Amino acid sequence: MISGKNYIGNKLSSEGDITFKTFNPLTNTENEIIFTEASDQEIEETVELANEAFKKFKKISGKKKSDFLNTIAEEILALDDLLLQIYTQESGLNIDRAISERGRMIWQLRMFADLVKEGSWVEATIDTEISDRKPIPKPDLRKILFPLGPVVVFGASNFPLAYSTAGGDTSAALAAGCPVIVKSHPMHAGTGEMVSSAIIKAAEKTGMPNGVFSNLNSSGIKVGQVLVKHPNVKAVGFTGSVGGGRVLFDLANQRVEPIPVFAEMGSVNPVILMPKAAKQRGEEWANTYAGSITLGSGQFCTNPGLIIGIKDDVLEGFIQTLAEEIVKVEPSCMLHPDIIGNFERNKSEVSSQKGVFIKADYTNDVPKNHGRQVIITVEGDTFLKNTTLHQEVFGPFSMVVQCEDKSQLLEVINNLEGQLTGTILAEKDELNQNKDIFEALQNRVGRIIYNGVPTGVEVCPSMQHGGPYPASTDSRFTAVGIHSIKRWVRPISFQNWPDELLPDELKNGNPLKISRLINNKIESE
Amino acid sequence: MISGKNYIGNKLSSEGDITFKTFNPLTNTENEIIFTEASDQEIEETVELANEAFKKFKKISGKKKSDFLNTIAEEILALDDLLLQIYTQESGLNIDRAISERGRMIWQLRMFADLVKEGSWVEATIDTEISDRKPIPKPDLRKILFPLGPVVVFGASNFPLAYSTAGGDTSAALAAGCPVIVKSHPMHAGTGEMVSSAIIKAAEKTGMPNGVFSNLNSSGIKVGQVLVKHPNVKAVGFTGSVGGGRVLFDLANQRVEPIPVFAEMGSVNPVILMPKAAKQRGEEWANTYAGSITLGSGQFCTNPGLIIGIKDDVLEGFIQTLAEEIVKVEPSCMLHPDIIGNFERNKSEVSSQKGVFIKADYTNDVPKNHGRQVIITVEGDTFLKNTTLHQEVFGPFSMVVQCEDKSQLLEVINNLEGQLTGTILAEKDELNQNKDIFEALQNRVGRIIYNGVPTGVEVCPSMQHGGPYPASTDSRFTAVGIHSIKRWVRPISFQNWPDELLPDELKNGNPLKISRLINNKIESE
Repeated sequence: MISGKNYIGNKLSSEGDITFKTFNPLTNTENEIIFTEASDQEIEETVELANEAFKKFKKISGKKKSDFLNTIAEEILALDDLLLQIYTQESGLNIDRAISERGRMIWQLRMFADLVKEGSWVEATIDTEISDRKPIPKPDLRKILFPLGPVVVFGASNFPLAYSTAGGDTSAALAAGCPVIVKSHPMHAGTGEMVSSAIIKAAEKTGMPNGVFSNLNSSGIKVGQVLVKHPNVKAVGFTGSVGGGRVLFDLANQRVEPIPVFAEMGSVNPVILMPKAAKQRGEEWANTYAGSITLGSGQFCTNPGLIIGIKDDVLEGFIQTLAEEIVKVEPSCMLHPDIIGNFERNKSEVSSQKGVFIKADYTNDVPKNHGRQVIITVEGDTFLKNTTLHQEVFGPFSMVVQCEDKSQLLEVINNLEGQLTGTILAEKDELNQNKDIFEALQNRVGRIIYNGVPTGVEVCPSMQHGGPYPASTDSRFTAVGIHSIKRWVRPISFQNWPDELLPDELKNGNPLKISRLINNKIESE
Repeated sequence: MISGKNYIGNKLSSEGDITFKTFNPLTNTENEIIFTEASDQEIEETVELANEAFKKFKKISGKKKSDFLNTIAEEILALDDLLLQIYTQESGLNIDRAISERGRMIWQLRMFADLVKEGSWVEATIDTEISDRKPIPKPDLRKILFPLGPVVVFGASNFPLAYSTAGGDTSAALAAGCPVIVKSHPMHAGTGEMVSSAIIKAAEKTGMPNGVFSNLNSSGIKVGQVLVKHPNVKAVGFTGSVGGGRVLFDLANQRVEPIPVFAEMGSVNPVILMPKAAKQRGEEWANTYAGSITLGSGQFCTNPGLIIGIKDDVLEGFIQTLAEEIVKVEPSCMLHPDIIGNFERNKSEVSSQKGVFIKADYTNDVPKNHGRQVIITVEGDTFLKNTTLHQEVFGPFSMVVQCEDKSQLLEVINNLEGQLTGTILAEKDELNQNKDIFEALQNRVGRIIYNGVPTGVEVCPSMQHGGPYPASTDSRFTAVGIHSIKRWVRPISFQNWPDELLPDELKNGNPLKISRLINNKIESE
């Protein structure tokens, strides 16, 4: 069923010399299928095909794109257990997670299908002519969002379904009218190929141009770099490490024609534990956070890696409970030996810094490739002076910063790098009396949470997933939710254009019955 | 009245060692006032002040920002003739242009004042809680656009009022809630200081925090570079040359924390003259374009520098008439000896390329600093092979490309760099029968015009001013119209946040009565 080949549009191809296998971290053995990395010539052919496909795809109606996206969802569901099996074999994640992640992917596809079927997302804006305006007539101007061109999407190691082949970036780009070339993640190349086969089937069934979607295998960084530098690639979506994202961002900006890279990268997701909350509900929060930190072996970009409080007995009690509770959690398998290797290395590096105290360290025997949780503490002063302590440790790990007082707590917040999320645990009156704290935190994050956990990224219009650098490379966009479509489009204005040649969205008669801004007033039908 | 000093917030300061004067191109003499370039220490002080001001300014209501912007407009109008005089002395542009450009600046300020007073621009989005959702409850999420932080705006040489000190970028950034630091253009430092004095007065009258606006003098590139590299600067707006814009773009992207640079740069604004239109209305179009090419001495970013047609007798006739008509236009004074120097140099370079024919060259005696118009022609083949011919010649200059046939015309369009605008001159049936031409053109431009001229950039919501690189550094945004505010904002989500602590725009009661997306449905009050 899985060929190990690349999809260049609807053609399976394996002309390259480099091969690789995926790895089953649960059994600590390689999976059997041999994958062939895309060659330079295959990459070239893929981009050219996507560029040709764009000429047709950009004109396809929202209704047809909607059919395409819904059919992708159906074809993926039709893969049934086979997809779930390969998912678990390539990720070490369990079947429940596989089902829930597939559900999220399907939901995203259908959400974008609904969005483009309804059609108002193009932000159609019309300013009609005023022919007798002095000193010069006002022309007729109409504006619409228009796809950028072929988009390269990098599969994410930690979301083989929801943020990879047919994940958020791909759904959004296809909905926008951009052909997509996926640079498949080497850790789940088989999952990627299966999902790709479903997309290709859907494209054929719904009459999409060949090249609207391609999937290229890669064992390392080369394929991605060649793609990002290609003149006919017009935008990039990436989810992964700060290092990897920054390399792509730099490459894209060094091009003769720079292109947008939306990279969703590192985050330690600070949690501010206020004194009264620590006193009144410290135990409850410690329990909740023991779960949040270890959820999915801590392999979420929203994992709470930093808890900040004011040093006193109450905070000490919270740390104590958190340490006790977290070692009760059974460690689970991490995605890949490389990921557990990085986790162990980063955990050691941070834990061995001067002034660090290890409060919990799961030491029981666990199967190979399981991630063992650790909780450390540092003083506010130590944290401020040592930026090694600011880095993300991807895995089940968190650090509690004990500040001297509120002013140091504010200083710590103001010295944080950009973050996807920030959380405040506080009683209501306490929150009210400490507006400066949440205002400072708000400056550093994309999403701010009251009395909750950052893990769990709701897919809905109000979700902002993306924050000041390095949380993402452009905080003005989100990676999750319908508004993520805006990363892949640009406005085009039509001036004095004949009505019959305008896109339907801009025609006088509003044949698509969408909501539009006409002469500065919203009109819906 | 003009001190020659920098405005660091409301304080006049001139601690630096470098001084310079502006130049009157009409009299070909230096103006008298001595300006002092901002020193490194003054730059540092300015950014710190802006950063402090941001803490307060980001929380100021739309109504108050609206008062501020309207008061800026009033204070600028109160400068009356003194402003118009210094404008003409520093630019060589005439009083009518001064009045019209001031009108545009005032209109922009009031447009943004209206926008933020009404308030719906923040795209408030609300998804309410579903506490009994399975398997996990859906949290309450609410999203709003939030200012990025201090913005640096570079004054534009060719728009001393409308795209400089209180121009489009400044109005949009202040409306967004971002403090603005203007890097004043050295060619019109006096105009800049006068407008700055009006902004400072308005800030004081309406109770804005000190540092919400600053104006720094600079004689060259250094002040701008220091500003763009400063960690507390969060975004940059620039209008000018590709070279200048690219330097800033690169600096911003090489920062530890890269920041968005919206640079509106070069464009030759291609005009496609279709055969039937050339035949039926060639003379009319030749007349119209003789005017458009020489308007304001060709010193507009939308100047039509490239006309593309299919070689035949009719096109030859058009070129003939254009050449005859354009030399009837009286040359006018260009902005600065440096600009006329560049114009002469670029004009010579392009005109001396192999295969170029000079069809019109104004040779009568004109006052020094007046720009003499030139029309050249080349064959399609020549144009395709020589990218020197693709570069912008800023001034009253245009090139007619004579293509062999329609397929070469398409090839020329597909090989154009990104453009602010593209124009098609065609009879209606001709446009209808050549959809491939406007589809190709549409791919390369931000605004597409039917039977008109690209000069004249209407300030309205449907205007897209910005196109694929190098027309601008990010085609997803516009430099003109209300949507230009989106360059300076990012979304923030609030999760489970107490109603009384939410921004008014997101509160349950909708106290500002704005339009919001609630559970995926637009609700207006």
